[in-house]
Amino acid sequence: MTIRSDGRAVDSLRKINIIENYISSSESSILIEFGHTRVLCNTTVDLKVPIWLKGKGSGWVTAEYSLLPRSTPQRVRRERGSVSGRTQEIQRLIGRALRGVCDLSLLGERTVTIDCDVIEADGGTRTASVVGGFLSLVKALRAIKFKNGDKSIIKSWLSAISVGVVNDTPMLDLCYTEDVAASVDMNVVMNDKNEFVEVQGTGEEATYSRETLNRLLDLAETGCGQIIDIQKECLGDSLP
Amino acid sequence: MTIRSDGRAVDSLRKINIIENYISSSESSILIEFGHTRVLCNTTVDLKVPIWLKGKGSGWVTAEYSLLPRSTPQRVRRERGSVSGRTQEIQRLIGRALRGVCDLSLLGERTVTIDCDVIEADGGTRTASVVGGFLSLVKALRAIKFKNGDKSIIKSWLSAISVGVVNDTPMLDLCYTEDVAASVDMNVVMNDKNEFVEVQGTGEEATYSRETLNRLLDLAETGCGQIIDIQKECLGDSLP
Amino acid sequence: MTIRSDGRAVDSLRKINIIENYISSSESSILIEFGHTRVLCNTTVDLKVPIWLKGKGSGWVTAEYSLLPRSTPQRVRRERGSVSGRTQEIQRLIGRALRGVCDLSLLGERTVTIDCDVIEADGGTRTASVVGGFLSLVKALRAIKFKNGDKSIIKSWLSAISVGVVNDTPMLDLCYTEDVAASVDMNVVMNDKNEFVEVQGTGEEATYSRETLNRLLDLAETGCGQIIDIQKECLGDSLP
Amino acid sequence: MTIRSDGRAVDSLRKINIIENYISSSESSILIEFGHTRVLCNTTVDLKVPIWLKGKGSGWVTAEYSLLPRSTPQRVRRERGSVSGRTQEIQRLIGRALRGVCDLSLLGERTVTIDCDVIEADGGTRTASVVGGFLSLVKALRAIKFKNGDKSIIKSWLSAISVGVVNDTPMLDLCYTEDVAASVDMNVVMNDKNEFVEVQGTGEEATYSRETLNRLLDLAETGCGQIIDIQKECLGDSLP
Amino acid sequence: MTIRSDGRAVDSLRKINIIENYISSSESSILIEFGHTRVLCNTTVDLKVPIWLKGKGSGWVTAEYSLLPRSTPQRVRRERGSVSGRTQEIQRLIGRALRGVCDLSLLGERTVTIDCDVIEADGGTRTASVVGGFLSLVKALRAIKFKNGDKSIIKSWLSAISVGVVNDTPMLDLCYTEDVAASVDMNVVMNDKNEFVEVQGTGEEATYSRETLNRLLDLAETGCGQIIDIQKECLGDSLP
Amino acid sequence: MTIRSDGRAVDSLRKINIIENYISSSESSILIEFGHTRVLCNTTVDLKVPIWLKGKGSGWVTAEYSLLPRSTPQRVRRERGSVSGRTQEIQRLIGRALRGVCDLSLLGERTVTIDCDVIEADGGTRTASVVGGFLSLVKALRAIKFKNGDKSIIKSWLSAISVGVVNDTPMLDLCYTEDVAASVDMNVVMNDKNEFVEVQGTGEEATYSRETLNRLLDLAETGCGQIIDIQKECLGDSLP
Repeated sequence: MTIRSDGRAVDSLRKINIIENYISSSESSILIEFGHTRVLCNTTVDLKVPIWLKGKGSGWVTAEYSLLPRSTPQRVRRERGSVSGRTQEIQRLIGRALRGVCDLSLLGERTVTIDCDVIEADGGTRTASVVGGFLSLVKALRAIKFKNGDKSIIKSWLSAISVGVVNDTPMLDLCYTEDVAASVDMNVVMNDKNEFVEVQGTGEEATYSRETLNRLLDLAETGCGQIIDIQKECLGDSLP
Repeated sequence: MTIRSDGRAVDSLRKINIIENYISSSESSILIEFGHTRVLCNTTVDLKVPIWLKGKGSGWVTAEYSLLPRSTPQRVRRERGSVSGRTQEIQRLIGRALRGVCDLSLLGERTVTIDCDVIEADGGTRTASVVGGFLSLVKALRAIKFKNGDKSIIKSWLSAISVGVVNDTPMLDLCYTEDVAASVDMNVVMNDKNEFVEVQGTGEEATYSRETLNRLLDLAETGCGQIIDIQKECLGDSLP
Repeated sequence: MTIRSDGRAVDSLRKINIIENYISSSESSILIEFGHTRVLCNTTVDLKVPIWLKGKGSGWVTAEYSLLPRSTPQRVRRERGSVSGRTQEIQRLIGRALRGVCDLSLLGERTVTIDCDVIEADGGTRTASVVGGFLSLVKALRAIKFKNGDKSIIKSWLSAISVGVVNDTPMLDLCYTEDVAASVDMNVVMNDKNEFVEVQGTGEEATYSRETLNRLLDLAETGCGQIIDIQKECLGDSLP
Repeated sequence: MTIRSDGRAVDSLRKINIIENYISSSESSILIEFGHTRVLCNTTVDLKVPIWLKGKGSGWVTAEYSLLPRSTPQRVRRERGSVSGRTQEIQRLIGRALRGVCDLSLLGERTVTIDCDVIEADGGTRTASVVGGFLSLVKALRAIKFKNGDKSIIKSWLSAISVGVVNDTPMLDLCYTEDVAASVDMNVVMNDKNEFVEVQGTGEEATYSRETLNRLLDLAETGCGQIIDIQKECLGDSLP
Repeated sequence: MTIRSDGRAVDSLRKINIIENYISSSESSILIEFGHTRVLCNTTVDLKVPIWLKGKGSGWVTAEYSLLPRSTPQRVRRERGSVSGRTQEIQRLIGRALRGVCDLSLLGERTVTIDCDVIEADGGTRTASVVGGFLSLVKALRAIKFKNGDKSIIKSWLSAISVGVVNDTPMLDLCYTEDVAASVDMNVVMNDKNEFVEVQGTGEEATYSRETLNRLLDLAETGCGQIIDIQKECLGDSLP
Repeated sequence: MTIRSDGRAVDSLRKINIIENYISSSESSILIEFGHTRVLCNTTVDLKVPIWLKGKGSGWVTAEYSLLPRSTPQRVRRERGSVSGRTQEIQRLIGRALRGVCDLSLLGERTVTIDCDVIEADGGTRTASVVGGFLSLVKALRAIKFKNGDKSIIKSWLSAISVGVVNDTPMLDLCYTEDVAASVDMNVVMNDKNEFVEVQGTGEEATYSRETLNRLLDLAETGCGQIIDIQKECLGDSLP
């Protein structure tokens, strides 16, 4: 049986840690940790919407993502001149994932922005951002008095995890060294009914069979279920 | 049975048209058409590599993607100040897809750039770019005398297609109006052994079941197979 | 007598080809060819005007110009960070030329944008853009119902051509290799009354006499007249 | 006697907290807290120098500063297009302050970069950055084996604090609400010999007398002395 | 006794020259010279205010600063892509200094912009900009008919000068070669009551004692007083 | 007979004034005035060439042009984010004009940059820049010891002037109010043999006949001749 660098089984998650109210200056603030990966997810609610939504009574949910320069072993430059394709891809994914479980028409003319700032990066920062971002979003919405009540804005629980193929072995929740060595890299975003919000599976100068795809989705399903259990410990069983 | 706006069956491709040597100023030039969608794919081969590959004897394959301003019914602004997240996502996908079937170590210190310029956009421009880009790449490599021969640089045929769920019906090769109405949008890149290079499936403020995922992948497999048959008519049965 | 690389006489135009309705997504679309030079000219009409014209009842005509990266034998970089001086000069020239034959006060509060995208470049792309842009503009205006009728918005026919001195010989309609070798390079924009809209004559690290200037203008006058005849075949004898 | 919003005396510092090794991916990592103000100071050492220092055997110390978007009660935009004057001023000040106590000629051809990322901002972020940055710098240098030993690179201890005039009362270590209300705002950087590295005192649409200046410098001297005592608890009494 | 390169005593100003109405196209125009340092200060008054002041009845005073490329012995590049930290620091200082002696609430909803363009730079350009900018500002305000009269908008005279320590000697009004050699560099902005608007004293990889600070402030006080006398020759004794 | 706003005849130049050595920090410095139009032309000589000229033994001459914000009655914004098409067109024209009379192969691997900064703008700034730039260039070259002597680098005298049609009357040397009212605007650059370096004639939403073109060129020829006489008073009769 495959032994991973940190002794985990191939279908095990890293230790997940959630710190609520990490800072006091934002509407809601979550620091989420998957092993060494740490992401600070702060939520902002504005009473305005992007131009294309004005006057439609509907709201918007969006995300920004950034690596602190020394979140990684090699310092990365601040994206002060332009934003890299990688960053844009990731923050678009986070925003889409969150919108996938929101009924924006119930939000009113509000824009909710989730800032995901990576304090330390050891693989899986984008899926950790989705998980921490969801917690931060729910807590921020709970603090708002909606005219029509707010139970139904969040349609379901949301989870996300990375899976991949390392040394021909499908694995759950890759750390950085596994991610670098992976021939297939997949990010899966799911709700609590085992439905997908997003599947992104990429061969890294490699291809993969339908059978491998299915094994990876099985692993992701297991992992996402466990993450939702942890989220419920934090938020309670019922959504806002 | 579902009838689509253009009368196609749900598992039918649009008419595909390939014009070789569309312009005479580039190493190879392919104009590919999927119905009204038209993409011009020109290849450039340079005898240099990005900094991180220097001195390693290996090459690089990359792509750029752009919409002409009036390729769409509403004019889109030229990306002259900065490149949008959407454009970056797409050109990264095209490049990754092409590298997925290349043995870059056999390419020598060359950078191959595939420019995919969308003349007219009616849905599926990114997958059409992969298909046309592959043809253009193969033709450009055929024109090069490699020291070690070149049979093996291209490891397999490459195809790509969009699938999605429109009005609860999974469909193959979405045109623009179907794409806008889709609750699930998926792009699939495959080789000729029914293996995946990339799967990107997104719920548009919606989720989808594993069963739907499987039906979409079946449709994509059918479509990609037919596209490879058409590519072989153009390039002949054997790769470069 | 001087024989040119393609066998033309010094006072001969290259073969001109006009493809109408090249794409279906824009208000009007013209692909114009001068020999190998091919420019796609698409027109967009918006019901708004630049700030400085607001509330004056008058309209605006403007142009954008861009080279596809492989329109040239050496790939040119996309102008995604900033726009080069050359590009700005050319698109300002095209816009000015078109406005030179328009009565903007009759256009109403509309902005007409002509996108000139060079598919293949073999010299004379800016003058080809003026000629193709004029055709595209006229066709787009014909499709609009103007309150006051629209006969007089276009005040006259518009043509443009490059001339130059190559090996001490004044020539009409330079191709790329002639353009590179020219000591004097001149672009002339004229209407159908042999009047000038624009004359731009530049010595390339060289000077030229008044006599040469006159010979070049004679050539341009001949060429512009022939081009207007070809435009009339496309649009009919009467302007909108 | 003046009572401040948090009950402090006018000459009292807020509670200072220092967390060492906050993240594990950088050469040295300090999270410093002055009350609610929290700044993460990570150090990077590169074996190269800016162009103007090449070949001179000397090194360089520089700093970058950034506010996380929700470090403040009102979200601030990420500086992705350009860097604000305020940010540039602050990071130049931090770098100058650190260089003020370094003998760069003993550093060898190294660039040391201190990243100061503000997690939460409640006034005094620039002086907290100097204090935390100094700790992070010293710890990073201690980890390097210098050929000539390294005792003398750091010439003295370094401290910094803000002082200001609020409601006509000079005060030490302003929090955000005091900073906003201040008529005079002064930042003072000192070493452990009561010498200045930098004094920046600004009237906010106001002026101040020489007497007030002297009272503010007295307060700063007291505060800086106490901060150096706290730094010594963290680093030990002797500098590297 | 120390002899300076141009023969001045350590507490002497360079020759100051003021040319009024240097250009005729702006509301007021001052060319000010401190020795070889020459700065052109032009004022613009607009009947609008920045967004954050709209509807409050108050005005704004701001400044821009720029070096002409050959104002310096080594050509400096034009800041056409982005503005350097140094330039931003300086123009923020000039604006703050001018606002320090203005009662903006009496200005009405006007923005006054002082453009300080350095024609020739021989040290002290930022303080020369404050001095010339003040003159230009006062002359521009005199030309405006204020509803409530305008005597009190300018609350006091404003002056500024650089001082520093060169070869261990505190000196007044440093020229460029002195500035480069200085271990301490200080800019002081004062009004005519010997009060400070701004003090910025920086050790250049050095520190300085409180005693030195006091000696530098004494020199600055002397210099600023003399400059105000010269300003009064230009503007007359009473402010607008 | 037409009387112009300043009383000049239609074929009269404004008063031209040349101030040599205007600033002392550059290789050569000329302030040139055409009436109220004032341009400062400073020259820089660098011992390097652009990449495309490296190793060819030849040099380069280039120009930069900029309006000071209040050189115009309405303040223009500094071009700090991007450079306008107008500015680019003008500085390209100035550079081409100067190269038109230089033998770059005799210059050695040097880049000569002429900075043309407009202090006050009253029409004709680009042609004034060519005239002042030529003087500054010649003076800078005279100061260089060339190995092969330097007589022949400058091949001829260079002059430039604007002409135009105002109220149906062709005129020489338009001031700003005439320029705004002109239906045809032409800039002409000539050498001392009555040869053209550049002719740029533009109808402003208007057209012009060949006869008008000829009249404008006659005026330009007269004006350029007079300007060369004035240049000779400044530089002496023989070129370097």
